[in-house]
Amino acid sequence: MRFDIMTLFPEMVMNGLETSIIGRAVKNKILEIEAWNIRDYAFNKHSSVDDYPYGGGAGMLMQAEPVYQTYLAIQEKAALPEGKRPRVIYLSPQGKPFNQKMAEDFAKEDELVLLCGHYEGIDERVLEEIVTDYVSAGDYVLTGGELPAMMIVDAVSRLIPGVLHNDVSAEFESFQDNLLEYPQYSRPEIWHDRQVPPILLSGHHANVEKWRREQSVIRTAKWRPDLLEDAELTMKERELAEEIIENREKDLKNEE
Amino acid sequence: MRFDIMTLFPEMVMNGLETSIIGRAVKNKILEIEAWNIRDYAFNKHSSVDDYPYGGGAGMLMQAEPVYQTYLAIQEKAALPEGKRPRVIYLSPQGKPFNQKMAEDFAKEDELVLLCGHYEGIDERVLEEIVTDYVSAGDYVLTGGELPAMMIVDAVSRLIPGVLHNDVSAEFESFQDNLLEYPQYSRPEIWHDRQVPPILLSGHHANVEKWRREQSVIRTAKWRPDLLEDAELTMKERELAEEIIENREKDLKNEE
Repeated sequence: MRFDIMTLFPEMVMNGLETSIIGRAVKNKILEIEAWNIRDYAFNKHSSVDDYPYGGGAGMLMQAEPVYQTYLAIQEKAALPEGKRPRVIYLSPQGKPFNQKMAEDFAKEDELVLLCGHYEGIDERVLEEIVTDYVSAGDYVLTGGELPAMMIVDAVSRLIPGVLHNDVSAEFESFQDNLLEYPQYSRPEIWHDRQVPPILLSGHHANVEKWRREQSVIRTAKWRPDLLEDAELTMKERELAEEIIENREKDLKNEE
Repeated sequence: MRFDIMTLFPEMVMNGLETSIIGRAVKNKILEIEAWNIRDYAFNKHSSVDDYPYGGGAGMLMQAEPVYQTYLAIQEKAALPEGKRPRVIYLSPQGKPFNQKMAEDFAKEDELVLLCGHYEGIDERVLEEIVTDYVSAGDYVLTGGELPAMMIVDAVSRLIPGVLHNDVSAEFESFQDNLLEYPQYSRPEIWHDRQVPPILLSGHHANVEKWRREQSVIRTAKWRPDLLEDAELTMKERELAEEIIENREKDLKNEE
């Protein structure tokens, strides 16, 4: 899979993605990642890409043309079949909050283009012309779209076969069945007077699985009850979750 | 304000944060950022910090002791008043999704410690001992907590006075009154046959403001109707929003 990132800070993006698992997948040619400096496509001798917004207001805007020229250069390099336009994701707080389902959807593409906003935003007209998806990392404001773009590359890449060392990992972890992950323990058995739950030392796999599943339900009920709506629970599990949520509401009332 | 980041990839974190606005604030001594390599606090000669999880399962866990030793080193350096423990944020998909309100809350602290998970997670016991806040970047899975930690540093930093060049910017932008930002335009007036909305060229500030506000309401109703619940709208604006939402629902039905 190929990622092209349109940014004013190509080094930041490439440095952040060369580490760890993603970097290894690039070395192994499972992934191709290229950061394009929008400034290289400015049409003036000062390489400036920003200008004042029409109608006034604080800050500067990124102009349409340098963004468009960068896009054309990427399109040429990508050499997609005639008529096929690349999927272009604009990272902006205005977008739809990114989630795991979108990551799975993006992972089906052969190529993704990520456009990182900066300053007060980008001229609306080039967005209308090239952008296919408006995506936000979440409901918070950042100085630019670089970190969210890196996150999308990371979240999508780890779904591509061969990227994770241990292919089991992508499946058996967070958000399985819309539940949070259970607590985990490693050596030593006793640390700071805290003992590993004995069931994990029992060697009885079925009981371990049962305990873990129960812990996941408890945690999700405590911390993210909103996830339970779409979770697949047995009748007993749903009763457990409801009991925890009720107790929690009682505790909150008592605190008042 | 001071940020201490506990990680296995200190270079990735520092490279990603030295660019742009955050890097300038560090140079100007408004911010201090230090990344601590958990591996430096391993208690064996191989500097290994991971081990198998009790009870079996895929992948490796980060052990309690190296994380704890890193924490002690940070605590010593931070030299907080006696009895005061630093606020320690653990980045994990299990946490509460990060949002702008949390950013504002964190910005009140003098110091934040960010703990980046890796592998399949961290031994639960050290989390119980040191972590004060469990935070997630959103409902998606990443290869590690580094990118979310960088995002929190970015989102919090830009709320610290003096970090943004233009102090007006932090206020007058995305999420004002829980509305998305209006579209923006810069030179030229006509680009690819697309014209800047004439009202923005009128020089009539009150009309420009009115148009922008209306566009914000329209966008929010179209793209993020969930935000409108907490938005402060006039009666007329609420009617406009409801009309858009209704039409959208009709369109969706017609598509079916």
